[in-house]
Amino acid sequence: MFKNLESSTAGTAVATDAALAALPFDRDGLIAVVAQQFDTGEVLMLAWMNRAALEETLTTGRACYWSRSRKALWRKGETSGCSQTVKEVRLDCDGDAVLLLVDQRDGACHTGRRSCFYHRIDKNQLVVLSDPPLRHGDTR
Amino acid sequence: MFKNLESSTAGTAVATDAALAALPFDRDGLIAVVAQQFDTGEVLMLAWMNRAALEETLTTGRACYWSRSRKALWRKGETSGCSQTVKEVRLDCDGDAVLLLVDQRDGACHTGRRSCFYHRIDKNQLVVLSDPPLRHGDTR
Repeated sequence: MFKNLESSTAGTAVATDAALAALPFDRDGLIAVVAQQFDTGEVLMLAWMNRAALEETLTTGRACYWSRSRKALWRKGETSGCSQTVKEVRLDCDGDAVLLLVDQRDGACHTGRRSCFYHRIDKNQLVVLSDPPLRHGDTR
Repeated sequence: MFKNLESSTAGTAVATDAALAALPFDRDGLIAVVAQQFDTGEVLMLAWMNRAALEETLTTGRACYWSRSRKALWRKGETSGCSQTVKEVRLDCDGDAVLLLVDQRDGACHTGRRSCFYHRIDKNQLVVLSDPPLRHGDTR
């Protein structure tokens, strides 16, 4: 399906059920997900979804991931309040990555920081870019 | 190392060699990489790096990925000209994802589109968001 859509023009549509059935989940049944703040463009985190998490996200409009450490659905913000209201769900060219445009409440990171990407790395050193807030986020 | 840095304040630095040695590459020796256009914030693609690709990227300032299909280093734009000049390399909280801030020449996608994330998916349908350009990008 995704190969066929490569040459399709804007506005071409297919049924979501068919698209979900065509998704190339990896050998663990997962797909990588990038969460981006919808209005500022800040990349907040990278996480994973299985098919159930993606379906729940599409149905509820709240981001639901798969926690690889807890091996369970991870309803973002369930324990911390740092939830993500989903504005748009996108798939990449070959259907093996998801981009979630979200409205992030408080910090996306389990450290409480706004974004998980708070280390800058260059040739010689890695530098921490932001202070840890006092309040921590939820368990991944 | 990344656990210790969680509570570190902005400006804390460690050697890049030590950080690279601490990266939790997956069982295939890979780490997920999000490429974002540095000035507009557009998320362009999701790809993968092994340690050699990350080191080459840090050294040359040009994005180099690992092609899972070709099982070889993938110097972005080598065949298409659609290269990525790297402005900044970030790592997430637990070191298992990279965010590349890049200046993308032409389209990031192998279809020639600017971004790979050109499908929007909602409850009922998946919609193609942009037309395919005439000229195609490089082979992933």
